[in-house]
Amino acid sequence: MKLNDRGLLVVISGPSGVGKGTVRKALFNMPNHNLVYSVSMTTRKIRPGEVDGRDYYFVSKEEFENRIKEGKFLEYAEFVGNYYGTPLDKVNENLDRGNEVVLEIEVEGAQQVKKKMPNCVSIFLVPPGKQALYDRLRHRGTESEEIIEQRVQKANREFKKAKYYDYIVVNDEVNNAADRIMAIIRAEHAKTERSIHKYMELIGEDEE
Amino acid sequence: MKLNDRGLLVVISGPSGVGKGTVRKALFNMPNHNLVYSVSMTTRKIRPGEVDGRDYYFVSKEEFENRIKEGKFLEYAEFVGNYYGTPLDKVNENLDRGNEVVLEIEVEGAQQVKKKMPNCVSIFLVPPGKQALYDRLRHRGTESEEIIEQRVQKANREFKKAKYYDYIVVNDEVNNAADRIMAIIRAEHAKTERSIHKYMELIGEDEE
Repeated sequence: MKLNDRGLLVVISGPSGVGKGTVRKALFNMPNHNLVYSVSMTTRKIRPGEVDGRDYYFVSKEEFENRIKEGKFLEYAEFVGNYYGTPLDKVNENLDRGNEVVLEIEVEGAQQVKKKMPNCVSIFLVPPGKQALYDRLRHRGTESEEIIEQRVQKANREFKKAKYYDYIVVNDEVNNAADRIMAIIRAEHAKTERSIHKYMELIGEDEE
Repeated sequence: MKLNDRGLLVVISGPSGVGKGTVRKALFNMPNHNLVYSVSMTTRKIRPGEVDGRDYYFVSKEEFENRIKEGKFLEYAEFVGNYYGTPLDKVNENLDRGNEVVLEIEVEGAQQVKKKMPNCVSIFLVPPGKQALYDRLRHRGTESEEIIEQRVQKANREFKKAKYYDYIVVNDEVNNAADRIMAIIRAEHAKTERSIHKYMELIGEDEE
């Protein structure tokens, strides 16, 4: 029996190249969960094979900017001329239904989310050492030395953001990291601040 | 890789009759843990079959009272003329070794521990409903109605103490409850306040 019926907003972030996407996929492949992935909204053109509402919600620049003004994003960013954002209404609908909404986002977006929803669960995914991350950034593709160097610099700045998160999880092995995140989700539901209301109902007492 | 090497002090408490002992046993029967049970100190006489240092540390009343004066107990109580207490030095030795020290104690003792060691992890174990607990208290033994009534009154007072704990765990099924406690222990190790020091070492940064 769970004492908190509302879903949790779970923010998975960490330095570039740490493997956020891989861990998120491993997390969704675990049994017995009610995790949902938050579909982002974007102004970029739909690509062949993409489905509106599954891959992204595709909207015009005008609509996106109106939504910004109306405070309808949990976080958003501009990237090479296009907007990308997390629609707040969709997140809340899912949380009300009791689903855990997982956001896998960059460090900057994660800080926006924590400000807007302080009761989210924020997880900073880290490599087992700096060198491991540098090696990954280096072997990722065929980018020039200059681009690799930019990524290393970015990762170095992002490393220092750990203290703003609720939890630090080492991505030493992808399934271990996913396991730890699942344990965090279970533990957070049992936290007194999240479970005391239903508990007091259960035992038929008014809160004091 | 765990980012917190020190063990956790895990306090399991809850209203009388909720099944703290059963859940604790199920917890210790789980695989892959480094839980240790804190051996209490007492002034009561050793009984046949008991081993000093395993069942209890048996000491004289004088020694116990000296230890109280020297602040050497994490918590203690008097019960039918004898003292019972948790020796602080043994707890700290185990935590330093990286063991999780589990205390399964009454509500009053748990509040003493939280004051003395605020960074302990306190868990309030609750029944799936009040009636379930009353039934347990009633069917426990062959006690008189008067004693049962006293227990019910005690449980009713204890029910209200949930808000002083970090977590509320429902004992709907003993293995579920033990699973939840294990998830809490894993999550607590990943908490930023417990893991940031080693993380900063890992990435070779000074804390700011």
